Amino acid sequence: MRFVYRFGDGSADGSAAMKELLGGKGANLAEMANLGLPVPPGFTITTEACIAYMRTGKLPDGIEAEIRRGLAFIEKSMGRRFGDREAPLLLSCRSGARASMPGMMETVLNIGLSRDTLPGLGEMSGDERFALDSYRRLMMMYADVVMEKAEGIEPGEGRGIRSRLEKILKALKEKTGREDDSRLTAADLTRLCDRFEKLIAETFDRPFPDDPMEQLLGSIRAVFRSWNGKRAVAYRRIEGLPDDWGTAVNIQAMVFGNLGRDSATGVAFTRNPATGEARFYGEWLRNAQGEDVVAGIRTPNPLNEAGRTGEGKAETLETAMPKLYRELDRYRLRLEKHFRDMQDLEFTIESGRLWMLQTRTGKRTGVAAVNIAMDMLAEKLIDEKTAILRVRPDQLDELLHPIVDPTAEKKEKPLLEGLPAGPGGAVGRVVFTAADAVARAKGKDPVILVREETSPEDVDGMRAAAGIITARGGMTSHAALVARGWGKCCIVGARNSRVDSAKKRLVVNGKTVKEGDWLTLNGTSGRAYAGRLPMIDASEQPQFRRFMKLADRYRQMRVRTNAETPTDATLARRLGAEGIGLFRTEHMFYGKGSDKPLFLLRRMIMSRTAEERKAALDKLFRHVRKTVRGTLAAMDGLPVTIRLLDPPLHEFVPRDKEKQRELAEALGVSVAEIRRRGEALHETNPMMGHRGVRLGISYPEITAMQARAVFEAAAELLKKRKKPIPEIMIPVTCEARELADQNAIIARVHDEVCRAAGLKRIPHLVGTMIEIPRAALTAGEMAGPAEFFSFGTNDLTQMTFGFSRDDAGAFLGEYLDRNLLPADPFATIDRASVGELIRLAVERGRSARPNLKVGICGEHGGDPASVRFCHEVGMDYVSCSPYRVPVARLATAQAALAMPRGKGKTRR
Amino acid sequence: MRFVYRFGDGSADGSAAMKELLGGKGANLAEMANLGLPVPPGFTITTEACIAYMRTGKLPDGIEAEIRRGLAFIEKSMGRRFGDREAPLLLSCRSGARASMPGMMETVLNIGLSRDTLPGLGEMSGDERFALDSYRRLMMMYADVVMEKAEGIEPGEGRGIRSRLEKILKALKEKTGREDDSRLTAADLTRLCDRFEKLIAETFDRPFPDDPMEQLLGSIRAVFRSWNGKRAVAYRRIEGLPDDWGTAVNIQAMVFGNLGRDSATGVAFTRNPATGEARFYGEWLRNAQGEDVVAGIRTPNPLNEAGRTGEGKAETLETAMPKLYRELDRYRLRLEKHFRDMQDLEFTIESGRLWMLQTRTGKRTGVAAVNIAMDMLAEKLIDEKTAILRVRPDQLDELLHPIVDPTAEKKEKPLLEGLPAGPGGAVGRVVFTAADAVARAKGKDPVILVREETSPEDVDGMRAAAGIITARGGMTSHAALVARGWGKCCIVGARNSRVDSAKKRLVVNGKTVKEGDWLTLNGTSGRAYAGRLPMIDASEQPQFRRFMKLADRYRQMRVRTNAETPTDATLARRLGAEGIGLFRTEHMFYGKGSDKPLFLLRRMIMSRTAEERKAALDKLFRHVRKTVRGTLAAMDGLPVTIRLLDPPLHEFVPRDKEKQRELAEALGVSVAEIRRRGEALHETNPMMGHRGVRLGISYPEITAMQARAVFEAAAELLKKRKKPIPEIMIPVTCEARELADQNAIIARVHDEVCRAAGLKRIPHLVGTMIEIPRAALTAGEMAGPAEFFSFGTNDLTQMTFGFSRDDAGAFLGEYLDRNLLPADPFATIDRASVGELIRLAVERGRSARPNLKVGICGEHGGDPASVRFCHEVGMDYVSCSPYRVPVARLATAQAALAMPRGKGKTRR
Repeated sequence: MRFVYRFGDGSADGSAAMKELLGGKGANLAEMANLGLPVPPGFTITTEACIAYMRTGKLPDGIEAEIRRGLAFIEKSMGRRFGDREAPLLLSCRSGARASMPGMMETVLNIGLSRDTLPGLGEMSGDERFALDSYRRLMMMYADVVMEKAEGIEPGEGRGIRSRLEKILKALKEKTGREDDSRLTAADLTRLCDRFEKLIAETFDRPFPDDPMEQLLGSIRAVFRSWNGKRAVAYRRIEGLPDDWGTAVNIQAMVFGNLGRDSATGVAFTRNPATGEARFYGEWLRNAQGEDVVAGIRTPNPLNEAGRTGEGKAETLETAMPKLYRELDRYRLRLEKHFRDMQDLEFTIESGRLWMLQTRTGKRTGVAAVNIAMDMLAEKLIDEKTAILRVRPDQLDELLHPIVDPTAEKKEKPLLEGLPAGPGGAVGRVVFTAADAVARAKGKDPVILVREETSPEDVDGMRAAAGIITARGGMTSHAALVARGWGKCCIVGARNSRVDSAKKRLVVNGKTVKEGDWLTLNGTSGRAYAGRLPMIDASEQPQFRRFMKLADRYRQMRVRTNAETPTDATLARRLGAEGIGLFRTEHMFYGKGSDKPLFLLRRMIMSRTAEERKAALDKLFRHVRKTVRGTLAAMDGLPVTIRLLDPPLHEFVPRDKEKQRELAEALGVSVAEIRRRGEALHETNPMMGHRGVRLGISYPEITAMQARAVFEAAAELLKKRKKPIPEIMIPVTCEARELADQNAIIARVHDEVCRAAGLKRIPHLVGTMIEIPRAALTAGEMAGPAEFFSFGTNDLTQMTFGFSRDDAGAFLGEYLDRNLLPADPFATIDRASVGELIRLAVERGRSARPNLKVGICGEHGGDPASVRFCHEVGMDYVSCSPYRVPVARLATAQAALAMPRGKGKTRR
Repeated sequence: MRFVYRFGDGSADGSAAMKELLGGKGANLAEMANLGLPVPPGFTITTEACIAYMRTGKLPDGIEAEIRRGLAFIEKSMGRRFGDREAPLLLSCRSGARASMPGMMETVLNIGLSRDTLPGLGEMSGDERFALDSYRRLMMMYADVVMEKAEGIEPGEGRGIRSRLEKILKALKEKTGREDDSRLTAADLTRLCDRFEKLIAETFDRPFPDDPMEQLLGSIRAVFRSWNGKRAVAYRRIEGLPDDWGTAVNIQAMVFGNLGRDSATGVAFTRNPATGEARFYGEWLRNAQGEDVVAGIRTPNPLNEAGRTGEGKAETLETAMPKLYRELDRYRLRLEKHFRDMQDLEFTIESGRLWMLQTRTGKRTGVAAVNIAMDMLAEKLIDEKTAILRVRPDQLDELLHPIVDPTAEKKEKPLLEGLPAGPGGAVGRVVFTAADAVARAKGKDPVILVREETSPEDVDGMRAAAGIITARGGMTSHAALVARGWGKCCIVGARNSRVDSAKKRLVVNGKTVKEGDWLTLNGTSGRAYAGRLPMIDASEQPQFRRFMKLADRYRQMRVRTNAETPTDATLARRLGAEGIGLFRTEHMFYGKGSDKPLFLLRRMIMSRTAEERKAALDKLFRHVRKTVRGTLAAMDGLPVTIRLLDPPLHEFVPRDKEKQRELAEALGVSVAEIRRRGEALHETNPMMGHRGVRLGISYPEITAMQARAVFEAAAELLKKRKKPIPEIMIPVTCEARELADQNAIIARVHDEVCRAAGLKRIPHLVGTMIEIPRAALTAGEMAGPAEFFSFGTNDLTQMTFGFSRDDAGAFLGEYLDRNLLPADPFATIDRASVGELIRLAVERGRSARPNLKVGICGEHGGDPASVRFCHEVGMDYVSCSPYRVPVARLATAQAALAMPRGKGKTRR
C-alpha cells in the first residue's frame, strides 16, 4: 500500500479524482499541479494512513521511508534542505478530508524551525524579525496541537498552553507599547521566544523539540488525531458526515506572505459566494500569513475594485500588484472552467511570486447556489441536470425564510455596517456569549449572537442564534464560513464596533447595545438596525422561480403539504404544493380562539352514553364541516387528505378546575364526576393506547360525524361547480378488518349525504395511514379496503425503535453524541428498519392493489435524504410543512436524476 | 353441488372421512350406518348449504327437492309417512359442526306433529298422553327456536316465549298438584296444548304451523342460523374455532325413549372420561327422552354395576335390560376398535329396540387423556406418535394444578357428595350466579360457582370460577361437559342438595352454605368439604411421567423456564425445565421481605451523581450476587439466562411520603428534592422510554454491577466444583452498537473477576433480547455482538401492534368480540406480523452467525400454538413459567411430529 503522493513542479502522483484517498485539498493540489499552476511542492499522506493510525494508534509501517522520499522531492524542487542551518526548508502540515471541514482540524506551520535553523532563516530571508516571529508561531501551534493535545489534556477555559503563551505575548505588547504583532522588534521577539521555550519545557517536562523530523512526525500524528477531536466530531454530526473517512495530511513547502511589502496572502472565490454574482471576489492582506485572514485577526482588504463595499479606502490587490492580480485572475478562469463550479482559492505572494495554496468547490449561500447554477447553465458551463444538483435542497430554506422588508429598511439609518457574510434577515435580542445564546434561544424570543470574533467553540451558540454579528474578520473568517454553510444571517467585520463580552456591551460609533436589546440584521447587505424591522418573504425572486420550474420538469413524485387551515393551504399552494397530504382534524380544536370547539370536543369525550356523545358531536359537526370546506376550497382541484381524529382522548381532558366546572355544568354532572371520568381515560402509554381508528371502532358516531362533515362540505362545493377531492384517511390501523369496519360507516354516510344532496357520488378516496409496524407487515391485506397508503413515519419510527418521542430526549442525544445510532431516526428515515418496513409495505400493497396511491406525511416528508428514499421505493407523493414544499420539490427532482424511475410522473 | 347425504339401513352416502362437509355428527352417523349399527334412518344437509344460507339468507336452490328425496328414503325405511294421519313419521333436526359444540346450537324434535297427525301418533303408539306430550314439546322448541329467534327478537330475561310457555306448564303442574311432567294426564296435556297454541298465535300473529314441510324447513333454517347465535359465537371464540366452517344439519327419524317402561335413553363413553379407566361408562334413564339426560332435568342412573358410586340403589341398564346392554357393549367395542379412540355414544331404546343415535370422539379430562393414550398404546390400538398427539398440551394443566391433599382429606367428613365431573381440586368462596362469579373472581380469592344446574348462559361464570358444583345433572350434563372440556374441577348431581339462587343459599342435609363461605372440592372423587383444605401437586403420577418421557423422545426444542428464585428454579427443574430462559433481575427487588434491596434500588435511581449511584450500587451488588448464586446453583449444569435491569426507572420511584422521607434522609437531601427527582424521571410513554439497555448506556455502572454479581457468583460456584452456565441478556436493544457498548463493559468486568479469582475464563454467553421491531429487522447486525437471541414477544407484540398492554383493555376485548383481530396477540403469536419479524430475525441472525442460539422468553413460550411456531422457525428452546413447562414439552413434541426438522435435538 502506498501512503505518500507527491505534487508540484507541473505534475503530481494524484489527481482531483482521488478525493477519497487524498482528501479534497490534496486531490485538488495535485490537480492544480497537473494544470501547471504554481503550487508549493509537497506530498499528501493518504486517508488510509489516518484510518490505520486511528485503529492502531501508530503510523503504519514503512510510511517514514515514504515521507523521507517525499521530503527529498520537496527539497529538490525548492533547492533547500529540511533542517539545513544555512537555507532551511520549512514545511506546513494541514488536514484535508474528503469534505471540507473548515477550522475543525489542526494545522502546524513553519515546521523545521529550531534554535539550529533560526539563524539560517534570518539570513536567507534577510529578516531576523521574521524568522523569530515564525519561530514563536511554530512554538505556539506545536505546543498546543502536538504537545498538549497529544497528552489528551483538556485544560479549562484559558488554562491551555496556547492561551498562556498568548498571555505572555499580550503582556509583552502592553509592556513595549506595541499594539500590533508586526511592530515587535527582533529583540522583543528574542525575549519572547526564550520565555516560550521556558514555559513549554516547564509545562511538558521536556523541551520544545529541535529535531525537524520529530517536529514533522509529531505534527502528522496530531493532525490525524484531530479527526477525532471534539470539534471535528461535533461538526460531522451536524453535517451528517461519516466518522470512518479519516483525513489526509498535506505536507508542503512553506511560502511566506509576511516576508515584507512585496509579500501578501489572500482568499478568493471565483464568483460571489453570498449572491452568486459572476465576479472575481476575494480578500487579501499585505505582509501577512494566511491564518491572519482566516482567523479574522486583521480585517482584510477587498481583492479588486468591484469588491469594494461602503466608503472604505482599503487598497485592492488589483491596484497594488496589478500584474500578480492578472496572473491570479487567469488561474481563476482556468480553474472554474476546469472544475465547472465556483472555486474557493487560497494564495500567497512571497517576495513578488504568486503561489496557489488551495482550490476547492466554494461554499455558498442558497441564493448564490441558485444564481450560480442558473448562470452557469446560461453560460453553458453545465447542463440542466447539473444545475439542479448544484443546490442542496436545504439551502432553499434561506430563500424561503424572511428578509428585512426593503421599504422599511430604506427609511432606517443603520446602526452598524459590516461584511454580508450570511444571507437573509434576522430579528432578535442581543447576547454576547455562545452559552447565553443557547440558553436564551430556548425562550420565546430569537437571539442575535454578537462576538468580537468567533471560534469553533462558539458553534453551538451560532446554531442557536437567529443571526450573528462579529466585530472582526472577513468573508472567509470562521463566523462567515460557518454561517454561510448553514444559510444563517451573519454580518462580520462590523466597522467601528467594539465588543466587550465581559460587560456584555457592543459599542458602535459611541452608541451602546446592551444584552437583551433588539437588533434587526440584513445579512445580504451587511447592515444592522436597532430595534425590530418588519420582515418579508424572499421566495418571489424570478431566478428562484425559474430554478424551481426547471427542477419540477425532472420530478417523478408529487409534493403535497401538511396543513389544517385555508391560510396554510393557500401559502403552501403558492410554494408549489400539489395538494394536502395531511389535514389533522384534531388541530382545528387547538390554538387561540378555538375555545368553543375545544369545549365541545371535551364534552364529547367526557360523555358516557352514546346519546350524550351524539349531542356533543352534532354541535362539533358544524365546526368541522366549515373548516374542511374552507380547506377543500383553497385546494380546489387538488386532493386533500383528511385524517380522522387521531390523538388519545385523554389529551383533551380538561385539567384546570374552571374548565372542569364548566364541563360539569354542561353535562349536568358533578366536578368530581368529571374528574373521575378524566382519570378513567388516563393511560400508561397513551401513544399505544386508545386512539386513532380504535376510537372509531369504539365510538362509530365519531367516525360518522367526521365523514358527514367531509361529504357535506364537498357536496356544497360541488354545487358551486368547484372541484373538491377529499381523501379520507384512517389513522393508527394495524389490521385490515379495522378498515373494513370504518369503511362501512363512511360508505353509509356517503350514500346518505348523496341522497340528501341529490348527487350520484361525491368523488373521494378512503385509505389509511401506515404507522404501526403490523400495518406495514400486513400491507397486502390492508390494501384490500384501502385505496391509498400514507406513511406516518413519526409514529412508525417510534414503534419500530421503541422510542417515545416525548421521552427519548433522556437518551437520544447521548446516543447520537456517542455514535450509537447512524442518525436521528426522527429526522431521517432509518433505512435499515423503518425503511425496510416501508419498502415491504409498498411492495405488498401494490401487488394486492396495483393502482394503490402511496405517500408519506410524517415529518420526514421534508427531509431530502428521506425524500430520496421515498422516490426509490416508488411513492406517488411526499407531504411536508408549507415552507418545506420547495425543499421537497428540489429533493424529489434530485432523487429522480440520481435514480430515474421507469414511469413518468405519477398520479396525485 | 349435492346438499343431501342419506344414511341408515346398513349403508350411507357419506363416511367418517367427510367431517368437513357433513359435520362430525353426520359423518359418524354415516360411518355407524356403514358399520351396520342400528341408526335411525336420516340424511345430512351439508355445511356448504349452511355457508350458502349465511351468505344469502336463503336455502340454496334445488335443496328442497333433495330434501324431499331424503324424506322418501326415511319414509321407506321406517314404513311410515311424514304428515300421514294414520302412522305419521316424526323427525328430529339437529346441528352438527366439524367440531363438537355441545349445547351451543339449536335442535328441534318431533317435527311433523300437528293437530292433523296427533290422533294418528296416539293410536300408533297406543299412548295419547305420549302423543300430546310430544306435541307440547315440539311447540315449546319450535316457538322458541324457529318462530322467536327467526325474528331476531332478543326478549329480556324470562320474557321469551319459551319461559312464558314454561310458566304455563309450571302453573298447570301446581294447579293439578303433579310434581313431575310424566304425571300429567292426557286431559291436562290437551288443555296445555290449547293454551300453548293460543299464546303462540297471539305472540307471533300467526298460528303454530300445521304443515309438516313448513315445520321441517323452518327448523333447518333455524339450525343454520344458530351457527351465528350468541352462545355459539362465544364458544367458538373461547375454543378458537373459525367462524366460516358453518354447521351441517341432520334430519333423522324420531325414535322415542319415553314410550313406556321398555323404552329408555342413555349416553355412554367407551372408557371413563374423567379417569381414563378402560371400562364401559355411562348413564341411562328409563322412559325418557335424550334431552332429559343432557339437560340434567332428571338425575340418570349408572349404565352398569361397575359404574355405581356411593351407596345409591339406582338400577343399571346391565341388570334391568341385560340383553340390550350386551348388544350396546358389542357396539361399544366395535366402535372403539374402528375409531381407535374413546367414543361418546348416545342411544335410545324404543319399545325394546336399541337405536344408536350418535358416536363421536369423547371429551376427556387431562388425566383421562394421558391414561387413555398410554393404555391404548399398551393395547397396541395406537402407536407412540398417535399417543403423544392424543393429549392437548393445555390439558396437562390439570395434572399440574393442585389436588386436595389426600391425608388431610381422609380426616374430613364431606359436606356433600356428587358425581366427579371435572378433575383436580379447588378451594374458593361460594357464589350463586354466573355474574357474581365473574365479578368476584376479579378479587383476590378464587370462587366456587354453585348452581341448581347450568345452562350455556352460565359459561362466563363457569370459566371465571375455580370450581363448579351443580345440585342436578349427570356426567353428561351441561356443567360436566363444559368443565371437562376446560379441565376444571367440577361436581354435578350433588345428592340431597338444594340451591336457592334468589336467597343465595346451598342447603345440604340441613347444613347451609352462604355466599362467601369457603368450600374445598375434590373433582376427582366428587366430594366437597366445608372450609379450606390443603392442596398438593398431582404431577408425580407415574403414568404422567411415562407419558412426558415418551413425548420428550420426539422433541426437537429444549424447554426452559422463567424464574428468579432458587425455589421456582427447583420446581421448574422437577417439571422438566432444562435451564432458565429468563431471570428478571428486577424481580428480586419486588415482593415481600425485599424492602431493603428495594430501598437500595431506589437510592441508586434517585442518585444524581455517578458517585452517589456507585455507593448505592455497591450495596445492591451483594444482594444481586446472592440471588444469582442461589439460582445458578439450583440450575447446576444447566444454562441460566440473566436479563439485565429492564423496567423504566420511574417504576421504582417511591410514591408514599414515608418512603420519600426515608430516601431523602439516606441521600441527605430534602423530601421536595426527592419528589422533584421523581418527577424528572416521569415519562409520557414509559414502555418506549428510558429503560433496558438505554439505562446501561446512560449508567454503565449499573451494567458493571450486574455483570460483576453474575461473574463473582459463577466464580464462587466454579471453586466448589459446580457447573454454573450464566448467559447474560441485554434487553430493549434496537441497534448492534448498543450491544457492542455493553459487551465491552461486561468483558472488562469478566476479566477483572477472573484475575481476582485466579480463573482463566468463566464460561458464559452474552446475547440480547429481541423485543423491538428494529432489533428484529437488523438481526443480521445484532448477531455480530450477540451470541444468542431471546425473543421478548410481549414487548415485540406491543410495538408491532402499537398496543400498550396496560391500556389495550379499553378496546382489545371489543376487538376480539367483534372479530376484528384473528386472535389475542398477547396470548398467541400473531404470525402475520410478530411471527414474520421473528422468522426474519432468525434467518438474518443465523446467516450472520450460524451457531446463534435462539429462544423465546415472552409469555407465548407456554402457548402451544406459539410453541409450534417457534419450532417451525427453528428455535433452539422455548421458555415459560414453571407450571407451563410440561405443557411446552408436549407442545414441542407435537410440533416436531407435525413438522419434523432436519436436525435432531438442538443445543441448550
